[in-house]
Amino acid sequence: MKPTAIIVTIGDEILIGQIANSNSQWLAQKLFSIGFTVVKMVSIGDNPQEVKDILEYTKNRYALVIFTGGLGPTNDDKTKLILTQWFNSKLILNEDVLANITNMVFRRTGSHILNQRNHDQALVPECCTVLQNEVGTAPGMIFNKCGNNTVYVSLPGVPFEMKWIYENHVLNFVQQNFDLIPQTYDLFYVMGISESALAHRLEEWENSLPEEWKPAYLPSAGLIKLRIFRPNPITEIYANSLAELTNLLGENLVASNEESVQDSIARLLIANNLTIGTAESCTGGNIAKTFTSKSGASHYFKGSVVAYSNDVKINLLGVKSESLNQFGAVSKEVAEQMAIGLAKKTNCHIAIATTGVAGPTGGTIDKPVGTVWISIYIMGQIFSEKFQFSTLREVNIERSTNTAIYLTYKHLSDFIKQ
Amino acid sequence: MKPTAIIVTIGDEILIGQIANSNSQWLAQKLFSIGFTVVKMVSIGDNPQEVKDILEYTKNRYALVIFTGGLGPTNDDKTKLILTQWFNSKLILNEDVLANITNMVFRRTGSHILNQRNHDQALVPECCTVLQNEVGTAPGMIFNKCGNNTVYVSLPGVPFEMKWIYENHVLNFVQQNFDLIPQTYDLFYVMGISESALAHRLEEWENSLPEEWKPAYLPSAGLIKLRIFRPNPITEIYANSLAELTNLLGENLVASNEESVQDSIARLLIANNLTIGTAESCTGGNIAKTFTSKSGASHYFKGSVVAYSNDVKINLLGVKSESLNQFGAVSKEVAEQMAIGLAKKTNCHIAIATTGVAGPTGGTIDKPVGTVWISIYIMGQIFSEKFQFSTLREVNIERSTNTAIYLTYKHLSDFIKQ
Repeated sequence: MKPTAIIVTIGDEILIGQIANSNSQWLAQKLFSIGFTVVKMVSIGDNPQEVKDILEYTKNRYALVIFTGGLGPTNDDKTKLILTQWFNSKLILNEDVLANITNMVFRRTGSHILNQRNHDQALVPECCTVLQNEVGTAPGMIFNKCGNNTVYVSLPGVPFEMKWIYENHVLNFVQQNFDLIPQTYDLFYVMGISESALAHRLEEWENSLPEEWKPAYLPSAGLIKLRIFRPNPITEIYANSLAELTNLLGENLVASNEESVQDSIARLLIANNLTIGTAESCTGGNIAKTFTSKSGASHYFKGSVVAYSNDVKINLLGVKSESLNQFGAVSKEVAEQMAIGLAKKTNCHIAIATTGVAGPTGGTIDKPVGTVWISIYIMGQIFSEKFQFSTLREVNIERSTNTAIYLTYKHLSDFIKQ
Repeated sequence: MKPTAIIVTIGDEILIGQIANSNSQWLAQKLFSIGFTVVKMVSIGDNPQEVKDILEYTKNRYALVIFTGGLGPTNDDKTKLILTQWFNSKLILNEDVLANITNMVFRRTGSHILNQRNHDQALVPECCTVLQNEVGTAPGMIFNKCGNNTVYVSLPGVPFEMKWIYENHVLNFVQQNFDLIPQTYDLFYVMGISESALAHRLEEWENSLPEEWKPAYLPSAGLIKLRIFRPNPITEIYANSLAELTNLLGENLVASNEESVQDSIARLLIANNLTIGTAESCTGGNIAKTFTSKSGASHYFKGSVVAYSNDVKINLLGVKSESLNQFGAVSKEVAEQMAIGLAKKTNCHIAIATTGVAGPTGGTIDKPVGTVWISIYIMGQIFSEKFQFSTLREVNIERSTNTAIYLTYKHLSDFIKQ
């Protein structure tokens, strides 16, 4: 059987939109990278019939089916019972799982006494391979010798538990049991051009490519990601096509190869021993968060001031109150003083400042919702630009963030070339 | 037909995990709230056969099918052609759409000249109802008089465009064409207790409930959300059950009814004319972001300092360098000085400070990865607590954020009661 896979999430919370389905995305990335073709993702409710329908539909049709969710200690969690029944198996106590649960509960509560619910999490279907969960109480399960050619895996729905069991057990299992060829794609981050103008520019190049290399365009606020599946091993023709693409993209290409634009900035900062910080009004800490969510950020990210009020702009960033009165908080003067003030106060080489009207309220005739000033300070030089984004708050925050990061990359790489 | 719905996303980018499927979550929330039962969500690739399979499978079986994705101007977008073919229709030029596209392109580029790709976005299937898109170039489409009882809707994949068309066209259409009863749920945010201990505490109460009111438990880092579907209209028995639940949850209940804990804090701040700010080390701006992502935050959120370096702790927050030397950056002394310093510098009444080792590097024997100090300053009083969270960076950031918000809520509500 070809290494095809289906990812299934179980839980009403996804069908009513209460939570994001981040598990499916994470698993899809992992399965793709090791060589699986994820054909479909499905979300269904905590409903025995729906689970059974999926089991029937997928058996002997796909190589691998991964379920997440429905393994908790509470009454709404039914996945383990449904699987036990469908595989004509029965629940038995697993002593290793029991020991692990006892240990987890002791670490959390200081007591060795388990309540019935935690105890019952150590009951597992007799026919499955049990996957120990060292970061939670629900074990994972692999059903691979249960009467059909499809391998079924059941994992908890809590994201960090699911990830831990995948990385510590499932990955190894599938690599040993399937013929897999690792796969990846090349990714190009393109800014400062519209999607249709970009497609127009690349038209001739795109027509010259074989079908399997046709690029996919992923537009988001102010940024287009261009994706091309990379042959394994890489051929000379492919390498030449990419070189031509890089040439066509020119200055609009801001990062590539699975690196985000922030990663490109981080690479430049580390290589040149430089540090960065942010002074954010309308982006509210979003730019800082994109830097600090990466491990190792403390080597180049000094810190940030979220300046929602004039007090903060004046006291922490040294913005002049006359400038606030004369030009308003959303102005070139204030954006520049914020950037310079942050660089001075935090001793960083580069400072990003944003000030704007995110909306939905706060707009005026002169400065409607979506008006944003962005200033980039780079060791004594300052670059400022005004933008008119959208009427939607979330779009304004996202576009301001993306644009500020893009401008930082552009001015920083120019600066370093000097 | 019962108001059942299926949400389908089209795009390889979801199947390889390149992007999160945020569209499905958003649509699921909206459809649930107006009265649809979302039975399933499916993600498939940019593959004509898969789209046709879904069309065949769903016709006359579900009331509504919403597709998102595959409507862009580039070659990888095929949804419109597939739908046109499946409905035995043909593409015709829609003058209103063409005018809208021309207008959009003019606003973006200053030119009235369309390239072929943008022009072709004005071609629509003859049999559909066209939904004008005033925030992008791809129109939406409703197929409701095309030979079967299922209503098919096709929307662009760019989230803000999809949302705009839903809110301005689709919502009105489905409300006029289906018998819908609005539905909602009651949501209880519970902290400071484990999932199994909570289920244990609620056991007797839960057993007394009819099946349709059985609560669902949604655990995340340090927070459990308890969800119960609310009958419409509310009955007295239901109201009594909730009152009993509230009583059982006691101090562990930190917010309820679709409000997040931040919303509860915001409500307390606004009612008492108080302001808040954050001084964040290990949470890197995440707490600020949870406040500032909500419209109206500028009424109570003063600002934030992300203090990744000692420079920033000293210069912006007034932390003493002797304290950093003597106790280290991750210490009660530094956490408290950060909170007090922020409150002083930004003139805010309440300050939240975090300092910890998020990991994966930076741990020591005394202060392993996961060690976090949280201090909450409230008008002259200070409350500090040390936590030992996880070995995983993302869990440490999330648990620190959730716990800091929980402690803020707890101490603030106690303070106000005084």
